Amino acid sequence: MIQKGLLVVLSGPSGAGKGTVCKALLPTMSSLGYSVSCTTRQPREGEQEGVNYFFKSREQFEEMIQQDELLEWAEVYGNYYGTPLRYVEEQLAAGYNVLLEIDIQGALQVKKKYPNGVFIFLIPPSLQELKQRILGRGTETEESFKVRFGSAADEMKHINDYDYVVVNDQVDDAVDRVRSIVIAELCSVKRNREYYNNLIQEGQTDAVSFN
Amino acid sequence: MIQKGLLVVLSGPSGAGKGTVCKALLPTMSSLGYSVSCTTRQPREGEQEGVNYFFKSREQFEEMIQQDELLEWAEVYGNYYGTPLRYVEEQLAAGYNVLLEIDIQGALQVKKKYPNGVFIFLIPPSLQELKQRILGRGTETEESFKVRFGSAADEMKHINDYDYVVVNDQVDDAVDRVRSIVIAELCSVKRNREYYNNLIQEGQTDAVSFN
Repeated sequence: MIQKGLLVVLSGPSGAGKGTVCKALLPTMSSLGYSVSCTTRQPREGEQEGVNYFFKSREQFEEMIQQDELLEWAEVYGNYYGTPLRYVEEQLAAGYNVLLEIDIQGALQVKKKYPNGVFIFLIPPSLQELKQRILGRGTETEESFKVRFGSAADEMKHINDYDYVVVNDQVDDAVDRVRSIVIAELCSVKRNREYYNNLIQEGQTDAVSFN
Repeated sequence: MIQKGLLVVLSGPSGAGKGTVCKALLPTMSSLGYSVSCTTRQPREGEQEGVNYFFKSREQFEEMIQQDELLEWAEVYGNYYGTPLRYVEEQLAAGYNVLLEIDIQGALQVKKKYPNGVFIFLIPPSLQELKQRILGRGTETEESFKVRFGSAADEMKHINDYDYVVVNDQVDDAVDRVRSIVIAELCSVKRNREYYNNLIQEGQTDAVSFN
């Protein structure tokens, strides 16, 4: 196999716009498969089973934890979120690239298992903007907003655990940056050393036969 | 200053298409300034003084070497090529990004002075294709072709000194890859640590004043 698939982790504080960026990114990159997460939270308007999430009961989710069927999972603001392990393992082993859109706790767990993944931290242009985005959803009580916003500001400290930061000022620009990161990583020498060393040997053979 | 400029070095074997990729890339990236090289070789058809190269006599070039006015220089196939030092230094210090399009000997010299540069190795899809491209120029004698091609095959060994390899199968795709590498590097945490640490401190201040 020339190269195993690339694991791309798009993460960041709640309200940064991870879901929006993901949704706009995927149609532009046919080489990137999306790993659908499981959650116990209620579907938001327009969200579909198996597309945005696999919606589970708490009992179902806890059974998945017990059976070791999750690459990462976390309880966030009272709901479980997790990444089914099998899809990710199979795709990467077959050489396909996989995109995970997960929170920061989850990303840190994934980094332990896949340190060679590409870890991208998506942030809003400022925390002021973040406040407005969380409030704009209209799904927050004052109490849950304080929990979310305080946590988001705190989570910014984790930037140093990531490889890249993408500022989500304009969705189109953020999508272009994430796409660029994936393309750049696929061109990186460190990820393709075996392949290039083969190419060099072929090159030498050619040169010898020419001379 | 948030971040000093990025030095992007596009290099690779003769005939890989560095000039073509550069020319197509620059109009797509207003943030990237092109460093025009000096050379003692004869202009090819359509090449303009100060745009493609600064064309110099051997005496003028050797005077620049003596005066330490070149970031890198090399004698390749009997002609001198070099990068004027001052333009690169001034642009980088002012925070602008600079693109160098230079041969492999030159890139290795630049890497010693600017180890934090982004080093991109442009290669043709195969050495077979490389033969055809060099011959297609119609400016080669059989002797100069053997020198160029043998050297190109040999130069492939230097891939491991670079950060990225871009295969120039289609010019548009190669340009998109180089552009992606520049964007990705500008998003990398390691190049922006100081900036993000400031952002984190601002974030905490915000959070405190909110609570």
